[in-house]
Amino acid sequence: MTNTALLIIDVQKGLDDPKFGQRNNPDAEANMALLLAAWREQARPIIHIQHNSVEPNSPLRPERPGNALKDEVRPMPGEPLFGKTVNSAFIGTELEAYLQGQGVSSLVVVGLTTDHCVSTSVRMAANLGFDVTLVGDGTATFERDFAGRRWSAEEMHAVNLASLDGEFCQVRTTAEVLAHTG
Amino acid sequence: MTNTALLIIDVQKGLDDPKFGQRNNPDAEANMALLLAAWREQARPIIHIQHNSVEPNSPLRPERPGNALKDEVRPMPGEPLFGKTVNSAFIGTELEAYLQGQGVSSLVVVGLTTDHCVSTSVRMAANLGFDVTLVGDGTATFERDFAGRRWSAEEMHAVNLASLDGEFCQVRTTAEVLAHTG
Repeated sequence: MTNTALLIIDVQKGLDDPKFGQRNNPDAEANMALLLAAWREQARPIIHIQHNSVEPNSPLRPERPGNALKDEVRPMPGEPLFGKTVNSAFIGTELEAYLQGQGVSSLVVVGLTTDHCVSTSVRMAANLGFDVTLVGDGTATFERDFAGRRWSAEEMHAVNLASLDGEFCQVRTTAEVLAHTG
Repeated sequence: MTNTALLIIDVQKGLDDPKFGQRNNPDAEANMALLLAAWREQARPIIHIQHNSVEPNSPLRPERPGNALKDEVRPMPGEPLFGKTVNSAFIGTELEAYLQGQGVSSLVVVGLTTDHCVSTSVRMAANLGFDVTLVGDGTATFERDFAGRRWSAEEMHAVNLASLDGEFCQVRTTAEVLAHTG
């Protein structure tokens, strides 16, 4: 597992904007920070992904303060960062080639949001042949409305993990991943 | 909308295997057949996708009878069919180049299952720049277990549509799509 990369997706200040509604799992960032510290201690590969939105009203546009990565996951010098403009971290970026060049074939994924950019990146990573572990309590999402019903953030999160687990990845907790990182 | 392609994903006999558990929306195939008839009548582009599983125990392996497309969506001569081995119809296939070569920039998507191959293909189509309409009642999925809880097929289906709608596609009904196809 020494060459397993920690992939941290879109943990950006703009996602605290109230426009996104209620979020689940307020501990997600603290869990990401624990994993990031463990990866740094073990000198394992760390990859940061930053969403540079092209949507007119998004707080994650590059020129807005919400584009900034949150303090808990701020990159250290030498840690690669890939900017992207769509949900998948693999589209419009050099991420796949970079991972292959580094001999990385397995990923531990954390970030925001469970069902949009995290799910899309996990699906594509798996379909490209990477072995993916998704840290369920290192992700979070928002409540969403559809067809006249509101689904809570926790429902959105849990059902999306149910769709991913066993098909695209293994969903694990932060504690489970840390127990295999020592 | 005359050059909007109907993309029919993995509507294969093997998905009737009881091993997959309870499914929602038994009308999905009938709705797909209505759309397919309308597309043929209008001579609009139709793309068939067939999953050629490489999983040891899958009824969708190429040498098994479950690999066959269901009767409701059987391709007619001249209609292109792309085989794939992963969830995304765009990975390991020439689908993206084919659509671009045909000048197709918008897709209407139906198929199985909502949260696995359909969701993955919709996400990737959108991120590659296609304009995507997903026919909610032209898709279906199965109940799934996660973290000690069973989510019904209808819950899996609805929550996954909630994650996709407005972010990756517009979710519409068969009737809504047909009303714009006449």
